[in-house]
Amino acid sequence: MKAYLISIGDELLIGQTINTNAAFIGAALSEINIEVIKSSVVGDDLETILSEFQEAFQKADLVITTGGLGPTHDDITRSSITKFFNTELVLDEKILEDVQQFFIMRGRELTELNKQQALIPKNSIPIRNSKGTSPGFWIEEKNKIFIVLPGVPIEMKEMINSFVIPELIKKNKSSLIQQRLILQTTGIPESILFERLGSIEELTNGAKLAFLPNQYGVKLRISVMAESESDCSNKLMEIEQKIRSKVGRFIYARGEELLEETVGKILTERNLRLAVAESCTGGFLSSRLTDISGSSKYFERGVVSYSNASKVEILKVDEDTLQKFGAVSPEIAMQMAEGIRAISGADIGLSTTGILGPTGATFNKPVGLVYIGLCDEKVCYAKKFLFGNDRLINKQRASQAALEMLRRNLLRIPDED
Amino acid sequence: MKAYLISIGDELLIGQTINTNAAFIGAALSEINIEVIKSSVVGDDLETILSEFQEAFQKADLVITTGGLGPTHDDITRSSITKFFNTELVLDEKILEDVQQFFIMRGRELTELNKQQALIPKNSIPIRNSKGTSPGFWIEEKNKIFIVLPGVPIEMKEMINSFVIPELIKKNKSSLIQQRLILQTTGIPESILFERLGSIEELTNGAKLAFLPNQYGVKLRISVMAESESDCSNKLMEIEQKIRSKVGRFIYARGEELLEETVGKILTERNLRLAVAESCTGGFLSSRLTDISGSSKYFERGVVSYSNASKVEILKVDEDTLQKFGAVSPEIAMQMAEGIRAISGADIGLSTTGILGPTGATFNKPVGLVYIGLCDEKVCYAKKFLFGNDRLINKQRASQAALEMLRRNLLRIPDED
Repeated sequence: MKAYLISIGDELLIGQTINTNAAFIGAALSEINIEVIKSSVVGDDLETILSEFQEAFQKADLVITTGGLGPTHDDITRSSITKFFNTELVLDEKILEDVQQFFIMRGRELTELNKQQALIPKNSIPIRNSKGTSPGFWIEEKNKIFIVLPGVPIEMKEMINSFVIPELIKKNKSSLIQQRLILQTTGIPESILFERLGSIEELTNGAKLAFLPNQYGVKLRISVMAESESDCSNKLMEIEQKIRSKVGRFIYARGEELLEETVGKILTERNLRLAVAESCTGGFLSSRLTDISGSSKYFERGVVSYSNASKVEILKVDEDTLQKFGAVSPEIAMQMAEGIRAISGADIGLSTTGILGPTGATFNKPVGLVYIGLCDEKVCYAKKFLFGNDRLINKQRASQAALEMLRRNLLRIPDED
Repeated sequence: MKAYLISIGDELLIGQTINTNAAFIGAALSEINIEVIKSSVVGDDLETILSEFQEAFQKADLVITTGGLGPTHDDITRSSITKFFNTELVLDEKILEDVQQFFIMRGRELTELNKQQALIPKNSIPIRNSKGTSPGFWIEEKNKIFIVLPGVPIEMKEMINSFVIPELIKKNKSSLIQQRLILQTTGIPESILFERLGSIEELTNGAKLAFLPNQYGVKLRISVMAESESDCSNKLMEIEQKIRSKVGRFIYARGEELLEETVGKILTERNLRLAVAESCTGGFLSSRLTDISGSSKYFERGVVSYSNASKVEILKVDEDTLQKFGAVSPEIAMQMAEGIRAISGADIGLSTTGILGPTGATFNKPVGLVYIGLCDEKVCYAKKFLFGNDRLINKQRASQAALEMLRRNLLRIPDED
């Protein structure tokens, strides 16, 4: 099965929005062995859209479009579809209910404009949208599949994952199957990871290994093809074991799990409670921890002690120490962690203090300098980190380093150095 | 002049890399009034690339390709070009020098493979690459321009900025210029915004108006074309005034400014200090405020009072009130805002409490219910919001609602209802 992706919207052509939808759908399709032969972006113009539909329908077995399904005048995908398939719009009662429900849930009134979102092409099956009001459409004509989805990433992704992919798997049966495994590492740069793994050919023996770095670490993606599920699993397991024997200490998760989920699971299992005192990360560490549903079980409280006064008043940091070593110091990181642990009664206190930039550097404290403190009933220590000069990336990296320090403490993984 | 962008590379089709190049070039071209009519992604396959060149050359006056210029076997853009234009590769001495220089600078040895990067199509002018080894090509045939660039973003961007755009400006003399204006709204759904603005034709009088919704609100983008800068500015000003007269209270920024920047500026100007007490937003509100460099001037501290104990202990919330109304109530929102204001000595206290889901709903408190509290020296009040059932989006929307409540308080914009 060959696929052709069409993203619709002027904002993509003029570069106001980066087209992340095509990458997401491309990845999802290639996971299930559907080859994407082309992906295109066209503006909100009827003639162009129709000619693009024509080309896609000719060249591919599967066409997926995103965008242009909103309620306003510049959203014309719906009318392009009816024109292309020479059909008309009909009201779908189930979808109308969904739309009404969506508005009731938000306590807002349903307008005539919104009701129009329940109109679907007569030749289509609606794809329900649990995150928004525009349904998608699934059309089958001439042995080809044409899928129309909204352009809002969160809505589109949910519809791809919960409906489109399962349906396509049913339709697209091939003899070879593919399996993938993600191993997520943190605290080790890509180049060192690469060196430690040694010969990639020896390691993978015909499988594919990709290095996917981002600000939180490096993901390793292993892809194998084989004739059966169990052959795939065995190959993957073998490669995983080899990788773990070399860099296992840096691997925090199998699959797309976030580090805040990993530590959340360990804390939940052990019935431990965590409290956080943040200076430089400014609430981002607490925010990541509380992104996880159920975090109230183990996240007791957080304090964003941005001012020195708040460090002294809430966390009982010692004023003389503050004076002597400054707020960005291992001493204060430890006192913050100890302080938040003491006032909260939590099992573990975790703290951050640093200079995230772009301003705030002093003679011997550069932008990017961060100390992270951790105290539990047995130990209290701080570690030094030196990140770059991008404020927001530093926030991400510092929060990741704090979570990783917590993970290593919980799993008793000693530092190498 | 109409442009067609082609990005070449399997990694883009399978979603391993997000195509940021097309957005960058699209933005650069639209700045100089060159309309991008289509942008496409194709894999490293000769037949597909040739057919794509054909289509692009037919439909547009300007074709820009990126990717596939590296030294390895799967980079075939160079051979696709010679085939398409029925020409051959010739060695360019200047480019060879560039490549040699590049290797000397990095202390690496020049291989035969790398020397091949100095081969350019006979019908082209080379575009030098100061950040890497693959030159680009500029080809003019049949009154059309065909530009070939490497896919590495940093190399491509430099070549676009320093060579391609200046050359295109010389070629593309048009009398009309274009100007754009972004107005950012929040707290009003897209459909109601659309209705309040009334007839779009009347409002814009030939200009273009786009609605760009996201979880933080709806951006309005107005694009005008005119013969001079001042004509553009006048048209934009006229439309902006009309829009402001209808929905001005919901507009927080002109341009791409974030709401946390808007409120940060007002707080700085007035020399006011803010403290935040978060329950449901879990640190995200503090994190957004501290994303802004210089926020330590006005952000005094934050408390993430996730547990009830922390609400009582740090914020001095009344236990009886907590018992009687529950943590998710207007009473507690107000007490939290008052509490954080009192302990911090800040001018304004801002608080959030709610049920972000997916779990935690009770009989009369659904997922998505959020109260935001605000206290300053004169007033103390709470507002109720009902968001959806996605935890992370609710966090974003609740923090945006809190910042907007703060903005309206600072600017004395009364609520409509």
